Amino acid sequence: MSRLLLNCDIGESYGAWTMGLDAEVMPHIDCANIACGFHASEPLTMHRTVALAIEHGVRIGAHPAYPDLAGFGRRSMACSPDEIETMLLYQIGALDGICRAQGTRVSYVKPHGALYNDMMREPAKLRAVMRAVARYDASLPLMLMATRDNQAAQAMAEEMGLLLWLEAFADRAYDADGLLLPRSQPGAVHEDADTVVAQALALARGEALRASDGSALYLHADTLCVHGDNAGSVAAVRRIREALRSLAE
Amino acid sequence: MSRLLLNCDIGESYGAWTMGLDAEVMPHIDCANIACGFHASEPLTMHRTVALAIEHGVRIGAHPAYPDLAGFGRRSMACSPDEIETMLLYQIGALDGICRAQGTRVSYVKPHGALYNDMMREPAKLRAVMRAVARYDASLPLMLMATRDNQAAQAMAEEMGLLLWLEAFADRAYDADGLLLPRSQPGAVHEDADTVVAQALALARGEALRASDGSALYLHADTLCVHGDNAGSVAAVRRIREALRSLAE
Amino acid sequence: MSRLLLNCDIGESYGAWTMGLDAEVMPHIDCANIACGFHASEPLTMHRTVALAIEHGVRIGAHPAYPDLAGFGRRSMACSPDEIETMLLYQIGALDGICRAQGTRVSYVKPHGALYNDMMREPAKLRAVMRAVARYDASLPLMLMATRDNQAAQAMAEEMGLLLWLEAFADRAYDADGLLLPRSQPGAVHEDADTVVAQALALARGEALRASDGSALYLHADTLCVHGDNAGSVAAVRRIREALRSLAE
Amino acid sequence: MSRLLLNCDIGESYGAWTMGLDAEVMPHIDCANIACGFHASEPLTMHRTVALAIEHGVRIGAHPAYPDLAGFGRRSMACSPDEIETMLLYQIGALDGICRAQGTRVSYVKPHGALYNDMMREPAKLRAVMRAVARYDASLPLMLMATRDNQAAQAMAEEMGLLLWLEAFADRAYDADGLLLPRSQPGAVHEDADTVVAQALALARGEALRASDGSALYLHADTLCVHGDNAGSVAAVRRIREALRSLAE
Repeated sequence: MSRLLLNCDIGESYGAWTMGLDAEVMPHIDCANIACGFHASEPLTMHRTVALAIEHGVRIGAHPAYPDLAGFGRRSMACSPDEIETMLLYQIGALDGICRAQGTRVSYVKPHGALYNDMMREPAKLRAVMRAVARYDASLPLMLMATRDNQAAQAMAEEMGLLLWLEAFADRAYDADGLLLPRSQPGAVHEDADTVVAQALALARGEALRASDGSALYLHADTLCVHGDNAGSVAAVRRIREALRSLAE
Repeated sequence: MSRLLLNCDIGESYGAWTMGLDAEVMPHIDCANIACGFHASEPLTMHRTVALAIEHGVRIGAHPAYPDLAGFGRRSMACSPDEIETMLLYQIGALDGICRAQGTRVSYVKPHGALYNDMMREPAKLRAVMRAVARYDASLPLMLMATRDNQAAQAMAEEMGLLLWLEAFADRAYDADGLLLPRSQPGAVHEDADTVVAQALALARGEALRASDGSALYLHADTLCVHGDNAGSVAAVRRIREALRSLAE
Repeated sequence: MSRLLLNCDIGESYGAWTMGLDAEVMPHIDCANIACGFHASEPLTMHRTVALAIEHGVRIGAHPAYPDLAGFGRRSMACSPDEIETMLLYQIGALDGICRAQGTRVSYVKPHGALYNDMMREPAKLRAVMRAVARYDASLPLMLMATRDNQAAQAMAEEMGLLLWLEAFADRAYDADGLLLPRSQPGAVHEDADTVVAQALALARGEALRASDGSALYLHADTLCVHGDNAGSVAAVRRIREALRSLAE
Repeated sequence: MSRLLLNCDIGESYGAWTMGLDAEVMPHIDCANIACGFHASEPLTMHRTVALAIEHGVRIGAHPAYPDLAGFGRRSMACSPDEIETMLLYQIGALDGICRAQGTRVSYVKPHGALYNDMMREPAKLRAVMRAVARYDASLPLMLMATRDNQAAQAMAEEMGLLLWLEAFADRAYDADGLLLPRSQPGAVHEDADTVVAQALALARGEALRASDGSALYLHADTLCVHGDNAGSVAAVRRIREALRSLAE
């Protein structure tokens, strides 16, 4: 990949409940992380979300989660590695089933919420996630978080023959280790759109970010996580998309 | 198919709860209808059930259902055709994901419980089921119930390019239309093992059964539904298997 | 009851998903039909909804449903009378538990969605609903739909020592039997606010409505079903409330 | 309480799946910890279990859990204190609703599985559990685990006006702190029925147990946790019941 792909959580409605401005943000992203029914969505919503992604030529990623609709997959659960591996296979397969019926395929995997956080912290869970992807289809890249040093994850991925797509954030401040500043801290979230666009451009150019302690932070990022929750975040995605486009020209 | 395949509902445990003598019955069947998480099972049980089927060289069928764990998929639900089509794609894909990780594939589809009954009665639901299978992979046969006249279903299947596998029962009495006598009626279930084996052999040989009104009933059957719930039903499967084997010799 | 109570479905958010303008509509209603976790809501949302009802002095009704979050309780399910009776006890009790912790109580019951429709059509289901309410606390009124003739339901309620609250609709057209015109028919929903208010006033005064065939329809109504889904329906509730208030003066 | 009450997890079947020998063990216990639908059971099973407890004059306890049917409530979940408090109110109320319909009441609370373990380790979760019980009905005792020193929990309970029932185990070995030896360690579970009965008698008499390091361990226990999973555990319950009865004479 020579350019920074924009990825966005999508298809997180559930039955009668809607969430996110999917139709508005889809035209501006590269990769749609589509919920697979464990933290959000059900088969009919998944079907419609896949159709929308196809319409806009957006790559479809499986966005598997812990089985926790009431908690939106944001509550860590003490699942065993075997449970995690098989629940990923189930969810990736389910979304892929819906894709196949429309002539397309899942083309990458990005775990959701608490599962994403847990896999970044616990090697046994990361290994379970990687094993699921590798066994399902080792050509599917796995998205995980770019930090100052992703060597351990890279080594594990190589061992399994897996490709990683490292993701960074344009709207969040980082500490010196390349971890996101907790939302509870002041300055953790960039409210100013110019700052967001500037950070996106820096990441795209491979320039250093300024970490929260003032140090320079180099992050290798393949993809940028953007949001389609509301009108403000969709506007930010459009600005990031334009800025990256002018960079590419 | 030149012979009568034995199909059996399998993998219907759920988390801490076990159901069925899967390990005992698997060696004697041809086709395992594996629960997909909507009426029974979860990803880890599905994974283990697929492994058991592979070990015994048994074909793996998706056994999708209405989303009703508490009712074991036995309660009819007023789902729309689009809901049914997409919930089937979801479940077939989920099981196929677990299969792919073990180097195998789903090779047919048999709806479960109330969904099976509803599809036999309501053409719009049957069409939704067929559309799901056809769009997922039109080479997967769909199991449905052999009756005196399956022409309407056959015509619909041909239109979609689908193959049907008609299934019959050796342990149930039929009425003159080739429908199962309701369990509430006396004589609806054959308690005697010899009667069961005799009915299996008649079906395998293409001979007429005796319907409840005494008339001759010819059913074309590709597969026979057998059960692995308890020691008695497993013993019956072994006897049917032996009887069919001697027939083939 | 000497006046027409306004009842409204409330507390139908679910985890991360919000639905309805609960805070906006609560000040203007008399009775809050609070979702009990089977078609919508979970314990934390239920707790907050009860607190909001208490704040505005609104009576709390249990709004039990079939166990179908993905279908929002709108899909009929073939549940047995025993299943219906016990699922109502479960849901009424659950909401009452949350009420008791805040020093209040459930004070009536109104089934939701497909369960409401099924109970209006199937005496065995209505009996199961009534038995649940009577066994839980026979002093709790049960809301059901006012039609031209509610005698059968009234007789069943008397047999069980139950009180019925009949509900009517101000925004829907009726046929000559006092049944709602299906939404698929033209004129089924009154779009004009003046018509809605006029129908509410007619019901409150005990005057005849004009049925879809032009005949006069007298409905005895204890309560009027209003909606808090969006700004338009909340505005309608405010107008109805004002009109009823001036009537009472 | 002057005697050691026998408490047992009961009513943990779920829909079509059965678990435990409820009918066999119920006649021999004092307190039935009845599952409330979050880790096991559904309304109809709860109704039948309550009826069985009434038949045998057994006290009914609510056995609430994390919302995790697939994991049988054994997987810790990162739920907030507010979520825990309200999910307990929901479950206690739901069981109480089913009790009221049969003329009885929930008379104590014992959290299940991972929630039980988490509350023993995390004061914020214990406080949430206690707050739920206290707000529902402060006269309901809360069961928790007897250890060498329960002072912190006792102080919290006093602050809330709650009564604790401390429970001990006759079939498990303890370490010197009065914690259960993990099942992974040799000797953690007493396989020998005589040892189990002897430990039950020691607890009933207030005599010291022998901890795993050989030291004397005094546990104050109000209740003993017994099991009805299989014929062996039911036989053990009968022997313990007889031994305690002869002690009381």
